[in-house]
Amino acid sequence: MSIAWTSRYALRTKDVKSSAIRELLKITQHPEVISFGGGLPANDVFPIQRVEEACRKVLEQNAITALQYGETEGYKPLRDMIARHIARYGIEAQAENVVITTGSQQALDLIGKLLINPGDRILVEAPTYLGALQAFNVYGADYVSVPCDEHGLRTDLLEAHLRFGPKFMYVLPNFQNPGGTTLSEDRRHKLVSIANRYGIPIVEDDPYGQLRYEGEHLPPLVALDRENVPHDGSYTRGNVIYLSTFSKTLAPGLRLGWIVAPPEVIAKLVQLKQGTDLHTSTFTQLVAYEVARGNFLDEHVKKICDVYRERRDVMLEALARCFPSEVSWTHPKGGLFLWVTLPEGMNANNLFHDALKQNVAFVPGDSFFAPNEPSQKANRHFRLNFSNARPEQIREGIRRLGVAVKAQLELAPKLPLVAF
Amino acid sequence: MSIAWTSRYALRTKDVKSSAIRELLKITQHPEVISFGGGLPANDVFPIQRVEEACRKVLEQNAITALQYGETEGYKPLRDMIARHIARYGIEAQAENVVITTGSQQALDLIGKLLINPGDRILVEAPTYLGALQAFNVYGADYVSVPCDEHGLRTDLLEAHLRFGPKFMYVLPNFQNPGGTTLSEDRRHKLVSIANRYGIPIVEDDPYGQLRYEGEHLPPLVALDRENVPHDGSYTRGNVIYLSTFSKTLAPGLRLGWIVAPPEVIAKLVQLKQGTDLHTSTFTQLVAYEVARGNFLDEHVKKICDVYRERRDVMLEALARCFPSEVSWTHPKGGLFLWVTLPEGMNANNLFHDALKQNVAFVPGDSFFAPNEPSQKANRHFRLNFSNARPEQIREGIRRLGVAVKAQLELAPKLPLVAF
Repeated sequence: MSIAWTSRYALRTKDVKSSAIRELLKITQHPEVISFGGGLPANDVFPIQRVEEACRKVLEQNAITALQYGETEGYKPLRDMIARHIARYGIEAQAENVVITTGSQQALDLIGKLLINPGDRILVEAPTYLGALQAFNVYGADYVSVPCDEHGLRTDLLEAHLRFGPKFMYVLPNFQNPGGTTLSEDRRHKLVSIANRYGIPIVEDDPYGQLRYEGEHLPPLVALDRENVPHDGSYTRGNVIYLSTFSKTLAPGLRLGWIVAPPEVIAKLVQLKQGTDLHTSTFTQLVAYEVARGNFLDEHVKKICDVYRERRDVMLEALARCFPSEVSWTHPKGGLFLWVTLPEGMNANNLFHDALKQNVAFVPGDSFFAPNEPSQKANRHFRLNFSNARPEQIREGIRRLGVAVKAQLELAPKLPLVAF
Repeated sequence: MSIAWTSRYALRTKDVKSSAIRELLKITQHPEVISFGGGLPANDVFPIQRVEEACRKVLEQNAITALQYGETEGYKPLRDMIARHIARYGIEAQAENVVITTGSQQALDLIGKLLINPGDRILVEAPTYLGALQAFNVYGADYVSVPCDEHGLRTDLLEAHLRFGPKFMYVLPNFQNPGGTTLSEDRRHKLVSIANRYGIPIVEDDPYGQLRYEGEHLPPLVALDRENVPHDGSYTRGNVIYLSTFSKTLAPGLRLGWIVAPPEVIAKLVQLKQGTDLHTSTFTQLVAYEVARGNFLDEHVKKICDVYRERRDVMLEALARCFPSEVSWTHPKGGLFLWVTLPEGMNANNLFHDALKQNVAFVPGDSFFAPNEPSQKANRHFRLNFSNARPEQIREGIRRLGVAVKAQLELAPKLPLVAF
């Protein structure tokens, strides 16, 4: 007998929209497609042998802790390690400032759960990370979008946008997704100072900060967030919530991220996380701790940087060779992405479909703008990932894309070039 | 210099209450405490060697899939395996009916996210699983509570409660948490039939169904949910969403649960899950698949049942020996819990504090009632877990608890016994 599963109540669910990333993650799985779409690490840099050794050690020495239920805030030695690790960037945290999350996507979900009531406005960069928009949309967020340029968020425009009363500001200062831009040191100070003056918290999302291919690390916003209390010489801190992840430095399949925040905020996030997934896998937490400990993570990040630096350079070189002069793009100093801007009259969504016919994928730019942002209507942008494809694939993919761009440009009305 | 982390915006967060389970999971970690509190599997039954072999095999044969980003719906071979596995209970599902979740706690969160708007009423059993209340509360749920007796939900009272217009009914038919009771077959048919007649969906939570220590398996609600369509002989199905987990049959530290539902409901849940944690750890999914495949899971469940059956029997025997006749308790045919009812005038919260002084822990009953339920005010109930402590610990713990109960009973005003 045939059984048809048909829901008689699906119409009573909330309105749930489909998303570009989801379809893209599927496209990237076809081996014939050269994908610049996802934000996937290179398959070649996973520390497979080290993970295998870690699994063996964890299961020989600590199997019960790894397989049993654990504390919602996360495995204490891992939280201690994270606190020590981020100290080098000037973030002075203890384990009590850290909660482990199921990837940093869950960090965004928990922040939305904790802070966003329907109609609350969130100040975001334009463009911004689409996964954050997805996480915040569910809680009924509205958005205030502030433009970016090659030095990141336009802090000179910030105060004018604060009249919309945002609940918090969501910012990716390092090698922004999707822009590939880095917030300048001068603007970091301005941003933190304005946030303090107006009492508007900052959510600082930093998944790529360690993947820097040139220049010096800039101070995280959370480290700049200090107020001198003159009479006892101490500092207070607490206007910035900082997020990061092992997805780009170890492996995304482990689903391990973390939030750094004041203890009373951590306590509330932990209570919400308990109802959300009880705790993050103790097994992957213990394995990641064993993999990362000693000097391994630092050495491994150097190796990743060497691989990704080469891929970035190959992509920049291929873009310069294959793309017409009317097209511009950012020059990221780290991370996984660069951002392409087409001349007026061209449309990235049309290009996307042409490119797919040539088996090349990228993410059209409109996904990275808040739903109320008019920039997404005339979509002249797209994001390219350079971490996942191998150098020869990058050269071939950009060559094909260049052909598609030139073909579209022939058809586009001639208009003056407007820079990113 | 000293750095104080103090949040200047914590007061602008939503109201987040602390929870009993969280504190209890901490208490259970003190080695001197005999804990009947958590819902923890026995440490002795984790298949450590099999997990180690699975890790080695996954990392030798399938490391990239295990460590890279994966599809939000979950690892396809694992979804196929789950669909095959549940067929034995009459649930005819395909992979398209299954989404893998980060523990079945995340299944509850996603269902809340999809279905609950603030003020929506959810019909629950009284008592019910407190983690479900936690998951649903965040989305602004109100509750309609229907009493249980030793045969589970009182279906004779169901229609009277439907006048409150519940959005869905949340039910644990097998070895209920916390009651330990099993919904009788007759009531299962009545429940599904009433749900169909009134068009109110059922969320069937079945974390313990395989852990049956006596008697025959009863049909799941999702398998009873059929409507004969006479003209073509086919059936439709779709009024029940079914949840289960590997936490009780393999290991909770893997954080692997699943939802079975009509494809169009799965599609929406997958979209919500994407914004929630992108996907569940591919690594733990592949490891669980390798552990469970072949006949291992069935053999392993038999072993677990032997261990837990003995512990249940030891606890029932100790209760009969150590507890005064004014106290009653349920006789679970499976699962992890039994439910104790004190005579009128006694209070389980007072007993909880007395018991802790004797290094014995349990969960007072008021946590298991919806916030608007008056039963929680005069709290005469508590939950005992019998899976985690060893037999000699169970005997000693129940002995100490019996002393505490008798001491309290001396102080309590004499009132007639009211049965559960």
